Amino acid sequence: MAEIIAKDARVASTILKTLTNEERSSALQAVHDAILAAKLEILEANVKDMEAAEAQHLSSSLVKRLDLSKGDKFDVMLQGVLDVASLEDPVGKITLATKLDEGLELYRLTAPVGVLLIIFESRPEVIANITALAIKSGNTAILKGGKESLHTFTALAKVVNEALAKTTVPKDAIQLIASRQDVAALLDQDKYIDLVIPRGSNELVRNIKSNTKIPVLGHADGICSIYVDEDADLEMASKVVLDAKTNYPAGCNAVETLLIHKNLKDKLLEIVQELLDNGVTLHVTDEVSKHLPKSSQIVPVIEGDFDKEFLSLDIAISFTDSVDSAISHINAHSSGHTESIITENKESAERFLKAIDSAGVYWNASTRFADGFRYGFGTEVGISTNKIHARGPVGLEGLVIYQYQIRGHGQVASDYLGAGGSKAFVHKNIDIKNVSL
Amino acid sequence: MAEIIAKDARVASTILKTLTNEERSSALQAVHDAILAAKLEILEANVKDMEAAEAQHLSSSLVKRLDLSKGDKFDVMLQGVLDVASLEDPVGKITLATKLDEGLELYRLTAPVGVLLIIFESRPEVIANITALAIKSGNTAILKGGKESLHTFTALAKVVNEALAKTTVPKDAIQLIASRQDVAALLDQDKYIDLVIPRGSNELVRNIKSNTKIPVLGHADGICSIYVDEDADLEMASKVVLDAKTNYPAGCNAVETLLIHKNLKDKLLEIVQELLDNGVTLHVTDEVSKHLPKSSQIVPVIEGDFDKEFLSLDIAISFTDSVDSAISHINAHSSGHTESIITENKESAERFLKAIDSAGVYWNASTRFADGFRYGFGTEVGISTNKIHARGPVGLEGLVIYQYQIRGHGQVASDYLGAGGSKAFVHKNIDIKNVSL
Repeated sequence: MAEIIAKDARVASTILKTLTNEERSSALQAVHDAILAAKLEILEANVKDMEAAEAQHLSSSLVKRLDLSKGDKFDVMLQGVLDVASLEDPVGKITLATKLDEGLELYRLTAPVGVLLIIFESRPEVIANITALAIKSGNTAILKGGKESLHTFTALAKVVNEALAKTTVPKDAIQLIASRQDVAALLDQDKYIDLVIPRGSNELVRNIKSNTKIPVLGHADGICSIYVDEDADLEMASKVVLDAKTNYPAGCNAVETLLIHKNLKDKLLEIVQELLDNGVTLHVTDEVSKHLPKSSQIVPVIEGDFDKEFLSLDIAISFTDSVDSAISHINAHSSGHTESIITENKESAERFLKAIDSAGVYWNASTRFADGFRYGFGTEVGISTNKIHARGPVGLEGLVIYQYQIRGHGQVASDYLGAGGSKAFVHKNIDIKNVSL
Repeated sequence: MAEIIAKDARVASTILKTLTNEERSSALQAVHDAILAAKLEILEANVKDMEAAEAQHLSSSLVKRLDLSKGDKFDVMLQGVLDVASLEDPVGKITLATKLDEGLELYRLTAPVGVLLIIFESRPEVIANITALAIKSGNTAILKGGKESLHTFTALAKVVNEALAKTTVPKDAIQLIASRQDVAALLDQDKYIDLVIPRGSNELVRNIKSNTKIPVLGHADGICSIYVDEDADLEMASKVVLDAKTNYPAGCNAVETLLIHKNLKDKLLEIVQELLDNGVTLHVTDEVSKHLPKSSQIVPVIEGDFDKEFLSLDIAISFTDSVDSAISHINAHSSGHTESIITENKESAERFLKAIDSAGVYWNASTRFADGFRYGFGTEVGISTNKIHARGPVGLEGLVIYQYQIRGHGQVASDYLGAGGSKAFVHKNIDIKNVSL
């Protein structure tokens, strides 16, 4: 069953790939219109999910995430579909053009990755968002929702499928899989599925990463650090650390580790007082505790605190000897998400920016800026801590790869040097601006 | 043991990452000079490997691949190191710059992937090549050679390590692992190793791909196809097919499947006569055989022939109804390497180029052009049939990813819209040409 679903998605992807941007975007308009028209029945289904969640005494934050009627969530979801539709076409962009010889040209064009498997938990609005991202980028998607949103999911799925059926987008472009089916069987379809995108808890991501051979776009942990250098502006340090910790503690870009140059020992309170005033618990080393007053908000670090994503009003604090020891600590303990140095010393800053091996390296800015919208990408597929393909906040370009085209007139390799012939390659760059294929 | 090796490579990568292009390139010059100075002892070790291979009656092609003294192989290897050293620095290139707000800029810079694991079989010259590629791109590498080249490998390893010890490149940047150790243990080090690059047989690549969670750059199969359209120039078709099949049948870019439009039935011999004259065996469907003379070189296709990389003077041939059925056949059977259409009909060609989901899609050219040197990349890390990160012939850019830098003046997210504040982001492109960090 999972194999049929995946194979159908693969076949559909070869058709979707040939559609124009106009066809893909107008299909999204149709999806938007259909969801709008079916708002009432979708919200009725959503109420059933919330009632079920309450009956099962699920946490209030989960019930809140399920609720599609809350505030302007429904309208934001709808607008998101139109926003994606109006983005620049990510497919078919020429990124390289080379004249190999007279009448023999090489082009590199962006192309869809192929088939996406999206696995998400309780937020049902992800269906609309991912449908838009996938179709816009020419990818087909298999969507697997969590059981908590089953009714909403089923209602949305019906609307999306019916809307797409009236467009040129093939019907298997978006397949919505009810939650009873086996995720494991889908994760085995590496022959047909090119990329898995999990949207949900760290637990979900970690679980998926360790159970598939398909590349996974995303991050399990966001263990972000801030290093306050000896040459830091302490007022700035206090302000940035406060923002990075308290603006949204559950965010993956919230700071979890604070490293402070040992020469700032006696000024420690200037940096952390605001954290204490805002209810943050400081998990500190013995040495750090010596420079702080007694307080129930100050507790000793325990093993693993510097490798921990608290996701709460908690932060681990240690002194460090130098910018280099801060770099070593971070490269050893961080999850490769985002790290920041606070300093007025350009040399220390450049050293930090160059040596830290994370997706985001900041100088005098809060780690909370690590976000696709703040980066100006228009949309965000996710934040990746992978070392290949796409890293950091990922926009639509994370869903495309490229193909090489050669356009010739019957040329053969054996006429050229290196393959038995005597002709030399020209290898002349063609200005991309002048190319229209 | 494997974990220590991998962890050391990871730590070394964070140092190598901070070196300048000059430091990396002059280390390669040192490696070149040392290999040149030790030519005699390396070739003596090489003779031992060849004697051992002959004593074990290994195939003559394997012994030939082992032989470093053959022709100009040693000099080519040395020149290759200098060529890589002189390439443009792939690290630290700014690929995006955005003004987020006054005094708050976002930059995207290319950065090394990190730690490479290279597993190769009998060609000992790969050590020099991979050492050069890794160091030039700021990556550390763990090299694991085959037992056939153990003596050469050990001699080269000693020279490379001693040469690097006199440079700023950390000693663990290139670790050469003798063949007795367990590959499986290295393939488990996904915590420290970012990319595996296998250099050797399809068997080796397939085996590695199914035994690691680390991304693998490369291809197991090269099942390339040529589709001869009804509007083809038949003389061109004959010439291109001949080149693609016979120029180097063992190459991954050699053609294995020939699809011919059914309307060309009666002109079939014009296309395949040259193949027959050059000793190629045609594996044909019943329908195709009806249009060919009896010959010992013409045999019926058996199951799997259209999913087979012959790597020999063999080709599978079928008729097809249309360009669309050719596309469907190829998307279902090819390995995603390179496919070519022969036609004078622009519409059919564009349809083929757009719908085929392979790394290379060609119009009126031999599949044999799929090669990093022919593409003008200066060097080739390998040819990838992956759907993410790097595809087709891969140059140095396949060994880099990117990092986002933010350079600010203490800005915090909570001052901006979307995170509780009222400031709007500027999101203005900065012309990369005017940026120097």
